[in-house]
Amino acid sequence: GALAATSPALANDSDELEKLRALVQELDQKISVLDRKSEIAEEEAAAKKNQTPIVSASDQGFGIKSVDGNFELRLRGQVQTDGRYYPGGDGFASGNSDATAQQAPNTFLLKQFRPALQGALWGKYDFLLLSDFAGGKTVVQDAYVDAKFVPWFQLKAGKQKTPFGIERLQGESDGKFIERALPNDLVPNRDIGVQVHGKVANDTVEYALGYFNGVIDGGSSDSFSNSDTDNNTDKDFVARVFTTPFKNEPGFLQGLGFGIAATYGDQRGSGTGASSTAAQTSTESLLPSFKSALGQLTFFKYRTASAGAADGTYGDGERLRWSPQFYYYNGPFGLLGEYVRVSQDVSRNLSGNIHRHDTLDNDAWQIVASWLLTGEVAGYTNPLPKRPFDLEKGTGLGAWELVARYSEVNVDDKAFDPFGTGSASTTQGRSYADPRAAVRKASAWAGGVNWYLNKNIKLALDYEETSFDGGWTDKAGSAYLDRPTEKVLSTRLQVAF
Amino acid sequence: GALAATSPALANDSDELEKLRALVQELDQKISVLDRKSEIAEEEAAAKKNQTPIVSASDQGFGIKSVDGNFELRLRGQVQTDGRYYPGGDGFASGNSDATAQQAPNTFLLKQFRPALQGALWGKYDFLLLSDFAGGKTVVQDAYVDAKFVPWFQLKAGKQKTPFGIERLQGESDGKFIERALPNDLVPNRDIGVQVHGKVANDTVEYALGYFNGVIDGGSSDSFSNSDTDNNTDKDFVARVFTTPFKNEPGFLQGLGFGIAATYGDQRGSGTGASSTAAQTSTESLLPSFKSALGQLTFFKYRTASAGAADGTYGDGERLRWSPQFYYYNGPFGLLGEYVRVSQDVSRNLSGNIHRHDTLDNDAWQIVASWLLTGEVAGYTNPLPKRPFDLEKGTGLGAWELVARYSEVNVDDKAFDPFGTGSASTTQGRSYADPRAAVRKASAWAGGVNWYLNKNIKLALDYEETSFDGGWTDKAGSAYLDRPTEKVLSTRLQVAF
Amino acid sequence: GALAATSPALANDSDELEKLRALVQELDQKISVLDRKSEIAEEEAAAKKNQTPIVSASDQGFGIKSVDGNFELRLRGQVQTDGRYYPGGDGFASGNSDATAQQAPNTFLLKQFRPALQGALWGKYDFLLLSDFAGGKTVVQDAYVDAKFVPWFQLKAGKQKTPFGIERLQGESDGKFIERALPNDLVPNRDIGVQVHGKVANDTVEYALGYFNGVIDGGSSDSFSNSDTDNNTDKDFVARVFTTPFKNEPGFLQGLGFGIAATYGDQRGSGTGASSTAAQTSTESLLPSFKSALGQLTFFKYRTASAGAADGTYGDGERLRWSPQFYYYNGPFGLLGEYVRVSQDVSRNLSGNIHRHDTLDNDAWQIVASWLLTGEVAGYTNPLPKRPFDLEKGTGLGAWELVARYSEVNVDDKAFDPFGTGSASTTQGRSYADPRAAVRKASAWAGGVNWYLNKNIKLALDYEETSFDGGWTDKAGSAYLDRPTEKVLSTRLQVAF
Repeated sequence: GALAATSPALANDSDELEKLRALVQELDQKISVLDRKSEIAEEEAAAKKNQTPIVSASDQGFGIKSVDGNFELRLRGQVQTDGRYYPGGDGFASGNSDATAQQAPNTFLLKQFRPALQGALWGKYDFLLLSDFAGGKTVVQDAYVDAKFVPWFQLKAGKQKTPFGIERLQGESDGKFIERALPNDLVPNRDIGVQVHGKVANDTVEYALGYFNGVIDGGSSDSFSNSDTDNNTDKDFVARVFTTPFKNEPGFLQGLGFGIAATYGDQRGSGTGASSTAAQTSTESLLPSFKSALGQLTFFKYRTASAGAADGTYGDGERLRWSPQFYYYNGPFGLLGEYVRVSQDVSRNLSGNIHRHDTLDNDAWQIVASWLLTGEVAGYTNPLPKRPFDLEKGTGLGAWELVARYSEVNVDDKAFDPFGTGSASTTQGRSYADPRAAVRKASAWAGGVNWYLNKNIKLALDYEETSFDGGWTDKAGSAYLDRPTEKVLSTRLQVAF
Repeated sequence: GALAATSPALANDSDELEKLRALVQELDQKISVLDRKSEIAEEEAAAKKNQTPIVSASDQGFGIKSVDGNFELRLRGQVQTDGRYYPGGDGFASGNSDATAQQAPNTFLLKQFRPALQGALWGKYDFLLLSDFAGGKTVVQDAYVDAKFVPWFQLKAGKQKTPFGIERLQGESDGKFIERALPNDLVPNRDIGVQVHGKVANDTVEYALGYFNGVIDGGSSDSFSNSDTDNNTDKDFVARVFTTPFKNEPGFLQGLGFGIAATYGDQRGSGTGASSTAAQTSTESLLPSFKSALGQLTFFKYRTASAGAADGTYGDGERLRWSPQFYYYNGPFGLLGEYVRVSQDVSRNLSGNIHRHDTLDNDAWQIVASWLLTGEVAGYTNPLPKRPFDLEKGTGLGAWELVARYSEVNVDDKAFDPFGTGSASTTQGRSYADPRAAVRKASAWAGGVNWYLNKNIKLALDYEETSFDGGWTDKAGSAYLDRPTEKVLSTRLQVAF
Repeated sequence: GALAATSPALANDSDELEKLRALVQELDQKISVLDRKSEIAEEEAAAKKNQTPIVSASDQGFGIKSVDGNFELRLRGQVQTDGRYYPGGDGFASGNSDATAQQAPNTFLLKQFRPALQGALWGKYDFLLLSDFAGGKTVVQDAYVDAKFVPWFQLKAGKQKTPFGIERLQGESDGKFIERALPNDLVPNRDIGVQVHGKVANDTVEYALGYFNGVIDGGSSDSFSNSDTDNNTDKDFVARVFTTPFKNEPGFLQGLGFGIAATYGDQRGSGTGASSTAAQTSTESLLPSFKSALGQLTFFKYRTASAGAADGTYGDGERLRWSPQFYYYNGPFGLLGEYVRVSQDVSRNLSGNIHRHDTLDNDAWQIVASWLLTGEVAGYTNPLPKRPFDLEKGTGLGAWELVARYSEVNVDDKAFDPFGTGSASTTQGRSYADPRAAVRKASAWAGGVNWYLNKNIKLALDYEETSFDGGWTDKAGSAYLDRPTEKVLSTRLQVAF
């Protein structure tokens, strides 16, 4: 140190001074040693900090991450336990008349059980591996890699959500209602394929262009008979553009987003079942059935080939879906809406080698409004409670939200039209769908309360009434009646981390 | 520092002294700097310690936890690989006579494959997500949140064990035998619902009050045809109280616990299968079948409707289960016992519009004793080996335990009674259960050895003989014989972390 | 410190000196305090380091491990998304003539979705819990503990790969082609049981001796009707020895390994289905069907009992498999080959109480070559890219590899021989396999490119042509033709961590 350099100049000091000076030098050396030790400790701490992965365990989730953030693994879980109650006694699981209808049971049910591995590799490749084991089934929901080359050009390959419907694209835990609204009977769900996507114009516009196996309306690729394998060679093209033009400008319109999406495919199903002893399935016909939103009860299906009987209706040619969509969030208030239209070529082979073919246009729409009572800011994802619920400390109530929606789905009238010549029952029997068993139109309004205890736990209580046109008959099976209005009360306990 | 304050008083020192003093001052400053650095390092370390989640990897398991303990995730796994061997050649998988009986194969089998996510959120909400993938099936075993508001009032919602049977409530890995004893044919297993539970009186009394979908005897909600959804609207009420009165008083009785549990429901099944081509299932009849404990072979079932044939027996009305139960642990010795009685209303629709209805009372009991040879302390959960097995170092043998049990199940005689008028074969054909195919009484004794190599690995070897009254016939199918005594030898390798 | 000891000797110093000396003493004490603090901090850091488990998050994977390494848990995942395209239009999913053949669809498919828990307990017990959820199925692939007592004596129990085929034993992600070659139609896959294994002679020889349930050729124990439970009492013995004699001697032969494996069992299947309304399954017959490698389309099966019709062929007695095998790696070049032969006793019960019985010898072989273009070193597992792909920084291309292979499978001619007396169609109908529907010989050549972007992500593009002898007929079903050559183009995106 500095002391050592000046020492030689003090050679003529007295003994006492000399001794003292020696002591001081000794101290100086000790200090130098200490100083060096401290530096080394600091360096070691810094080095360790740079090597030791970051572990997190909080309301934000559980995971580990390399210091540079390039490698990350998050261990996630989501469980939904529902209660479903049909107070009016008019929730029917099967049948199409007062005589034959079978009441759906009031039940607790395990709706979702979803462990997931989410993370990043090499700082560039995001992945999500998410499977669902609820209901005794195994469904891989997401299994994709998203290569984030640049913000405006990313490549996402594997099983993923088809980039189409705005409510469908919302996270499973972020929906305002326990079950998604009626338009989702038309909106494709998960599929296997690849999409190019990205954000442009200062992140105010996002686009997606995809190429997928193609799934039936409201369906996923896991609902094919060979789960997660296409059952025909034709594929679907998907495109979506969505803009939040005022995203970067604080003000009344900042929370506005709108866009449009479309899918196109040319796919041919089969009018008969796989064998003479098996009924035709949706997978074979490539045609969907529709079910009520909160009640989850089927109210529409096309005529299907039963074992050994007449051929059923089947998808036979082009299928074009398109959907304008928007959301708007302002303070505690939220609004989300979408319209979906599907033009589907269908055919039916009738006895006497008669083949009929038409394009059916089904459509649906919804609008859902939400209001946060406890001061949180509304958005496309769940609100973050300002004061998490704590009964003991009395510090918070969590977040409370009121929600309301209206949705409807309309089946093309041509689906029910009689065909050809002959008696009324003969010509009616040739329709694509049976007007006594399949509903022409369903419209539903619903209201509910969401209680977000904290970021991880949510309780919901919803009520929905769905009215129907058609789809019902009398005991004799000859009259054309309306399916009784379905009333459902549902509860949900959701845990997500 | 102190030096700076005294410096002005030394203005008349000699040059040498002055220089030395300057040096000393310099040193003092260096020390101050070092001291401050050390303080900062300490503060940083402390701060980091308060932020960095705690990671654990030991025989206690693997997991991460926030410093305040409020957020925790444990990653658990349990695998059981069994060997099952029927040395007497009298283990029958099907058939009810020497002519028709089919020998069950000796086999290795994968009994359990259970990954689990367990943890806590917000310090108050415990969760367990446990699924089983053994046997090519997907079964969600546990999917619940347990809100620990106060010790005497906790709310547990989701899929969970019905709080009823003492051996059933023991952990899957903690059982003294490879398979649970015969009373578990009557004890409900997992169900979906909610329970209020807690501990009172210095933790000496625990209670549980539950409301569940309701499952058949020995069954789980995943065995319904729509897995984990109720198949009827009626629900089960469950109550259990269990006390360990001397828990806090060391002495002979400290390890004694006893209690009683009950379930009540009023549920109606169906006497026919879902369609004319399908046989009636347990889900439809709401009635159980019974199987042997270690051998896992069915020896009792009610008459079921086969495709197109006569109607089967079905649960039709009240079902009341109750069970007194106890355990006692003292040093290496353990004893556990339970009695279970089920009063079940059943009906059967016979030809000629004859409807018969009865209340059947089936019961079962067991007593199981265990003795630890290596000095560990017995308890309701697995013992912790004092000296884990280590062949190389020769430091330990693990824990060794001898176990023995007796158990039996009795079916109500009324289940086999003939009914109405007509020939013997006609009236016998109207019984609820066929005495030539369904056993009236099964009684089993078993012995075994458990070797706990360490906290995580367990090997077991069990032998059981089950004797039967009834349930067998001759080649002509007319005689009323006893099902041959079943002899089973089983092994298990269990890994749990 | 040293200063304190010398202080008394300086009692006659001047006041100034005395004061200075006091200051110096003060400083010395401060330094001592600081020194001690620093020591404590070091000790604490060292202690913490010894207690805090090691967390890893890198291209090597994600996991936690105790400091002594005795307890470790790694969280792994592997996903494969494939595209399968039959450019020639000659990939047939069913049928055996131009009239009846059904084209297999071009499809994206989810081939593997495999989360896994891998680790070690007590430093000695390695475990692997690996399940696959792709295709809507749940399959436990690995569920074993491997007790590493000493290197030459290890005990592996649970569900695991049968130690037999060299390509089968390669990791699922390490194969040179998207699908394994034709010999794997004969090679047993996963089974439940136990093996003793180890390495001797300076790790140049590895051996395995196993005792397993026994699975059909190309099958796993999960394909039994009761998944992961044996369907018959007889078991398989397995043995394998493999040597890399020059492993420890750098040079031309260092990368050479060769060995031989065998399985033996005496197992009896059934010539009929389980019931009069169910067709006979592979599980019942204990006989395999064969499918093409890259195209995964079935081209050979034995005659099976259909509902109510004639009995099918079934495994009936001894089954001996043996396989010489080798690999050779030198720099960027790799070569792997195997030959597999199965001698299988089969029987068939014909009308008129005629029972025929034979031993059929089927065999198969393959050779696969690979060449790394980017300088990596070839081996039995995936190469580690020298320069991971990075488009932005332009620092690397990843690793590129060219691969080629030839493989074939031959069915014993006796399988197709007519039998007994009568018309040609009668005697031919008594053969074990139908020569118009089952192929006598399949030979396939394939080429492909593998692009390892980095250690975790791999893209593959393969093409394969498979030619067949027999297995096809004309519209009338009478001619003996060759199944059309199958052409397949496949892609794979693989993510593994």
